[in-house]
Amino acid sequence: MNKFPNKIFGIVQEDIKAVEKELYSIIQSPVDLVNDISVHLVQAGGKRLRPALFLLCARGGNPNQSELLPMAVALELIHMATLVHDDVIDNAATRRGRPTANARWGNHSSVLTGDYLWAKAFSAIAVGTKQNMLKILTDVISNMCEGEIVQLREAFNADQDEADYRLRVAQKTADFIAASCEIGALYGGLDERDVVQVREYGYAIGMAFQITDDILDITASAEQLGKPVGNDLRQGIVTLPAIYALKTSPCRDELRNIVVNQNMSDEEVSRGLEILHETGAVEYSYAQVNNYLQHARNSLPKTLNGPVRQALIAVTDFVGLRKY
Amino acid sequence: MNKFPNKIFGIVQEDIKAVEKELYSIIQSPVDLVNDISVHLVQAGGKRLRPALFLLCARGGNPNQSELLPMAVALELIHMATLVHDDVIDNAATRRGRPTANARWGNHSSVLTGDYLWAKAFSAIAVGTKQNMLKILTDVISNMCEGEIVQLREAFNADQDEADYRLRVAQKTADFIAASCEIGALYGGLDERDVVQVREYGYAIGMAFQITDDILDITASAEQLGKPVGNDLRQGIVTLPAIYALKTSPCRDELRNIVVNQNMSDEEVSRGLEILHETGAVEYSYAQVNNYLQHARNSLPKTLNGPVRQALIAVTDFVGLRKY
Repeated sequence: MNKFPNKIFGIVQEDIKAVEKELYSIIQSPVDLVNDISVHLVQAGGKRLRPALFLLCARGGNPNQSELLPMAVALELIHMATLVHDDVIDNAATRRGRPTANARWGNHSSVLTGDYLWAKAFSAIAVGTKQNMLKILTDVISNMCEGEIVQLREAFNADQDEADYRLRVAQKTADFIAASCEIGALYGGLDERDVVQVREYGYAIGMAFQITDDILDITASAEQLGKPVGNDLRQGIVTLPAIYALKTSPCRDELRNIVVNQNMSDEEVSRGLEILHETGAVEYSYAQVNNYLQHARNSLPKTLNGPVRQALIAVTDFVGLRKY
Repeated sequence: MNKFPNKIFGIVQEDIKAVEKELYSIIQSPVDLVNDISVHLVQAGGKRLRPALFLLCARGGNPNQSELLPMAVALELIHMATLVHDDVIDNAATRRGRPTANARWGNHSSVLTGDYLWAKAFSAIAVGTKQNMLKILTDVISNMCEGEIVQLREAFNADQDEADYRLRVAQKTADFIAASCEIGALYGGLDERDVVQVREYGYAIGMAFQITDDILDITASAEQLGKPVGNDLRQGIVTLPAIYALKTSPCRDELRNIVVNQNMSDEEVSRGLEILHETGAVEYSYAQVNNYLQHARNSLPKTLNGPVRQALIAVTDFVGLRKY
């Protein structure tokens, strides 16, 4: 996945550079192997979306600027920990075009490095963070685990509906992005109603973001994705486009046979993707993305200052436009 | 591994029952699979050593009794999370005589359930815990991960010495037990010098405990262990008895060839264990256990009240006596 063009993040561009620097500093370990894996994960990049949204939402009020860095870093470390464990779980070989930690160092070291990153994340915010924020975060993480376990349990199950999908995406992705925004708003001292609105913005961005990811898994090229195309289908992860096509396609029986096949061939994956394309599942899913993005924009509190509002809207534009 | 006879924990026996009850309550999840795995882990039992030592050390002073339960529960949840991830890493099939979570539900759900337990542990103490204690815990966890990764890196390496071993055992086991005692002493409001002493007690108990575990892996029967004998040797984990025998046995070259063999046969494992027995490696290691236990007893602050002191000494006796 490509990085967000840095300028999108507007007034927090410089802060993101500081986050980047602090990430390298906080993961330093006297154990070379821990260092190597962690540095690999930081270098793998990513969009730094969670810290950026946290920082932007905080700047929507009047935060104590010096208190922001540890939380911003913790949010990215938590995200990194989930990614490294996800790659173990998915047996993923590449992410963002580079070998995954598990492919390079094995599952065992990757599980432990994920745990190491959890610990470092909470270490960064153990002191000096308001306790209700810690609680928001720990609850988000246990929900994420539940969402991932449900996804495993429901793999290759063709009888999932859109409500199942939305719940799973909320738990896996949107609730964490919502929490990043909410915690930011709390740091900024926004009033209660605006905190709720900002959280809603984050939730909608998160939903749009994950649905886009699920679309791109079907439409982008392997080079663009940095991982194989049709990966979700192959892994039995039934996403929105598949749910739509399983309901509406004239070839839905054929698609169903592919979706439930735990050993599908490359040809079957290709045929499955073809059916999704033919059904208009991509267009249908993009329409949902656009609904969420519209909802995100509508949720922004009127009180936000210009540069923050502008950056938060730029994020919605980017999520809607990115093609890989 | 057998449970500690409950009476050893003396005045905190009832509190441990409350911990047990709260463990079941806190892991409850709307997702059945998460529930099933977590309940399996709680039922697998274990000695509840960390919460018991925490509670005892707190009772060495004048704790606010109502504040103790969340931390006691969190300590056990953290321990459970490390166990479930360790079993994934070791590909363990049984623990304490029962199938491991990974054997029963697969590695993927087990990794996620471990993460879920981390989150639940920190959720239990996010609110109402002094921040320096959170920091002690997060630092212990990142050290545990480092210790485990070093253990993986050094698997099948016959050139480790006792100092390497002690550092690894400290990181893996002793530092966490030390922290459980230290945090207890802080909750009890013990004075600074006594906190240091209590921590030292926990460290020494932890060292003795792990060395005993490593001895039992050689001397106990599979039924007693609830897992295969010679597991460490087979997994390439070079423990104190092996380090001693690699230095002193007349058959040390033969032993070295076994230790470094990543595909050792059952016969080779048996022969390796035989060499350890013949060398007196077990007696040598027990002597070190006894030294640590003596050090633990000597470290107990004079100021501790009778029942607490008695229970903490009973723990040292039990660690020294347990034969499986």
